[in-house]
Amino acid sequence: MSQAQVSDEDIFHGHERGKLSVAATRPICEARDLSIAYTPGVAKVSRAIADDPALAARYTWADRLVAVVSDGTAVLGLGDIGARASLPVMEGKSVLFKTFAGLDSIPLVLDTTDVDEIVETLVRLRPSFGAVNLEDVSAPRCFELEAKLVEALDCPVMHDDQHGTAIVVLAALRGAAQVLGRDVADQRVVISGAGAAGVACAKILRAAGVGDVTVLDSKGIIHSGRDHLNPVKAELAELTNAEGLRGGIAEALRGADVFIGLSSSRVDGELLATMAPDPVVFALSNPDPEVHPEVAARYASVVATGRSDFPNQINNVLAFPGVFKGALDAGATAITENMKLAAADAILSVAADSLAVDRIVPSPLDERVAPEVAAAVAKAAESDGVSTSATR
Amino acid sequence: MSQAQVSDEDIFHGHERGKLSVAATRPICEARDLSIAYTPGVAKVSRAIADDPALAARYTWADRLVAVVSDGTAVLGLGDIGARASLPVMEGKSVLFKTFAGLDSIPLVLDTTDVDEIVETLVRLRPSFGAVNLEDVSAPRCFELEAKLVEALDCPVMHDDQHGTAIVVLAALRGAAQVLGRDVADQRVVISGAGAAGVACAKILRAAGVGDVTVLDSKGIIHSGRDHLNPVKAELAELTNAEGLRGGIAEALRGADVFIGLSSSRVDGELLATMAPDPVVFALSNPDPEVHPEVAARYASVVATGRSDFPNQINNVLAFPGVFKGALDAGATAITENMKLAAADAILSVAADSLAVDRIVPSPLDERVAPEVAAAVAKAAESDGVSTSATR
Repeated sequence: MSQAQVSDEDIFHGHERGKLSVAATRPICEARDLSIAYTPGVAKVSRAIADDPALAARYTWADRLVAVVSDGTAVLGLGDIGARASLPVMEGKSVLFKTFAGLDSIPLVLDTTDVDEIVETLVRLRPSFGAVNLEDVSAPRCFELEAKLVEALDCPVMHDDQHGTAIVVLAALRGAAQVLGRDVADQRVVISGAGAAGVACAKILRAAGVGDVTVLDSKGIIHSGRDHLNPVKAELAELTNAEGLRGGIAEALRGADVFIGLSSSRVDGELLATMAPDPVVFALSNPDPEVHPEVAARYASVVATGRSDFPNQINNVLAFPGVFKGALDAGATAITENMKLAAADAILSVAADSLAVDRIVPSPLDERVAPEVAAAVAKAAESDGVSTSATR
Repeated sequence: MSQAQVSDEDIFHGHERGKLSVAATRPICEARDLSIAYTPGVAKVSRAIADDPALAARYTWADRLVAVVSDGTAVLGLGDIGARASLPVMEGKSVLFKTFAGLDSIPLVLDTTDVDEIVETLVRLRPSFGAVNLEDVSAPRCFELEAKLVEALDCPVMHDDQHGTAIVVLAALRGAAQVLGRDVADQRVVISGAGAAGVACAKILRAAGVGDVTVLDSKGIIHSGRDHLNPVKAELAELTNAEGLRGGIAEALRGADVFIGLSSSRVDGELLATMAPDPVVFALSNPDPEVHPEVAARYASVVATGRSDFPNQINNVLAFPGVFKGALDAGATAITENMKLAAADAILSVAADSLAVDRIVPSPLDERVAPEVAAAVAKAAESDGVSTSATR
C-alpha cells in the first residue's frame, strides 16, 4: 500500500490522545473483586513476595514488562528533539510489542542526556520492569549507555537501533545471498554510516562470517591508520576493512558486492555501477533512502529499503518483539550475541520457502515471525546459560 | 459480601501474571496502520511536538497518565516490605484508576528510599507522565517527599495515604454529623495515629472548620509542651488540641464526640463509654480495626471501618480516581487544599439523598462518585487559578 494514501490528517488523527491504554486483566464489578485486587486481599500477595521475592515473577506484571526507554537524542531521522517529542515513537514501539509479541511495555522518556543519570534512573526503577528496550539514543553515547546498563541490570537490555537493525539486516543479507546463490563468506559489504546501526551491523555481519565489511562515516572509510578515532571506531577499524581501503564512498564501492546505507548520505546511481556484477543494495535511511529504490534497481539485482511502499522492507519490527519475548520467556538475564544471531536465522526461516529477489525477508506484518524469533532466542538463551526459566 | 467468601486461592489466582495490561488504542492490521502508528508517519507527530511542546498533551498519552509511585516503605499494614513486594498494591491502584475514572496509570516502584533520589528520578521521568500518585511511603519521610515533589514538578502530585484518606474521612464525618443533626464546628474529634493519614486528617478537619481535634501518637496526646516533636508534629501541636489536653487515649476520649482510628492501636469498648453521648467511631485500621465494629456499635451511634464487610466503608477509592481525573481534566499544575475540600463535598453529595447511620458515605463501588468528584475538583482548580485547560 502506498504511503501516498496516508494523509497528515490520518496520521495526526491516529495519534490523538496517544496510542496506548492500560487495562485491568480482570474487571472490578462487585465488592468481592475489590477485596481480591485491592485491600484486604492484596496484602497476602505483597506479604508472600516480601517473603520470597521470586514470586514477583508470578504475581506481578513486572517480570514480563518491557521499559521502552529514550532520551530523545536521535529520534528517527529527526535528531535530538528531546524526550517529550520522542514519546509518540516510544508509544508506537509499545503498540508493536503488543501487536506482534503480546508483550506489555511502557514508554519511559527521560529529561536527561547524561549516560550515568539514565543508568542510575533505571537501576532505581529496576523492580518496575523486566527488560529494557533502548531507543533513539544518539551515537556514540548509545554504546556507552548500553554497555553500562547491561552491566548494571540483571535483565535483558537491547538498544534496538543497533541490534534490532543489525539482526534484520543480517537476515536480509542472507536472504539476498541465497536468492543469488552466493555464500556470505565471499561477500564484500560496504556500510555507509558508523552510528548506532552501522556499528552494530558491521559487528553482526563479521560475527556471522561475512567475508569483509568496510564502514564509512562522514569523514570517509574507517581504517586503522586514521587519526582521532573514538574507541568504538577504533574497534571497528580492527574488525573491518581487511584490505585497508582508504578514501570515500567511491573507493569503498568499487567492486563491492553489497551496499548498506545507514546514514542519510545520498549515493548516486553511477557509483552503484562500479560495484561487482549483480550487486545488492540496502538503502535503509528513512523516509528518504540513500538512493531511490527505482534508481538502485537499474544497477542492483536485489534492492531493499526501510519503506513499506517498496518490496523488501527491512524493518526492526521483524526482530525486537520476538527477541524480547524470547528473552523474557527464557527468563534471560541478558541478550547474548548468539541470541541475536538466532533471531536473524529465525526471521529468514519464515521466508525460506518463498525467497525471491523481491522477498528476501518476511513482511513486517507476517504474524509467524515473532513466535519463530522468540522460540529461537529462548533456545539460544538456554544454550548460552543466561536462561533462568528452569529455576523459576 | 463477606470477606470469608474469598479464599487465599481466589486471591493468588486473581494476581497471577499481574493485574495490568497495555493495549493499543488502535489496532495494527495492515501496512497503512503501521505507517501511521510507526514509521514513517510518527515522524510528523514527533516533529510537531518538537516545534510546539504543548502538542504533547494532544498527541501522546503522557499528559493524562498517572504514575503510581512507591518505595514500598509503608505498604498497607505490612510496613517496609520493599518496592518489589509493593507492586501488587500499585497494580491494584492502577486497576481502580481505570475502573472508576477511566484513567491510564503505570506503577513505578523504586529501589531507593532516599527522598532526594526519588524526587530526582521523577524529575528525570517528567515527560513520561502527567501526574503522580504517591503511595505507601512511610512517615515522616512522606511529608518531605510530597513537599519536594510538589515544588519540583509542574503537575498534580498527591500522597494518597495522606490526602485520599483525609478527603474520605472528612466526607464521612460530615455525613455522620448530618445524620445526627450536628454541626462539625461543635465536634471534638480524637485521632489515634500521627502517621501519613493521621496528620492529613487532622489538617483537613481543621481546614473544614471542625471545632477541635486531638491527635495521639505512640507516646500519647500531641501538645505543644511535649519535648522532641518533629517539625510535622510541632505544626500539628499548634493546629490541634485547643484545650491543651495531656495524657493518653483515655484522657483524649473522655467527652469527645468522634474517634478516628488511624493506627493499629487497640481501643477498648469501655473507653468508648467515656465519650460524649451518641459518639461517632471510625475504626479505620485494616484489616483489623482498632475496635471491632460490633463492639463499637454498643457505644456509638455511627460506626465506620475500612472493611467492605461492614456498613460505612471508608475507602480511598472514593477519592483518588476522581481527584486525579478532575485535576487532569483541568490541566491543573497542582492539587490545592480547596480541590481536596471540594472532593469531600462531592463524595458526600452522592450519598446526600439517602444518608443514614449505616450509610454516611457512598459505596466504594458507586460509579457516580468519581465523575462527581472530578467535576468538583476541576471547578476548584479553576477557582484556585491552577487550571491550564483554557490555554491548552
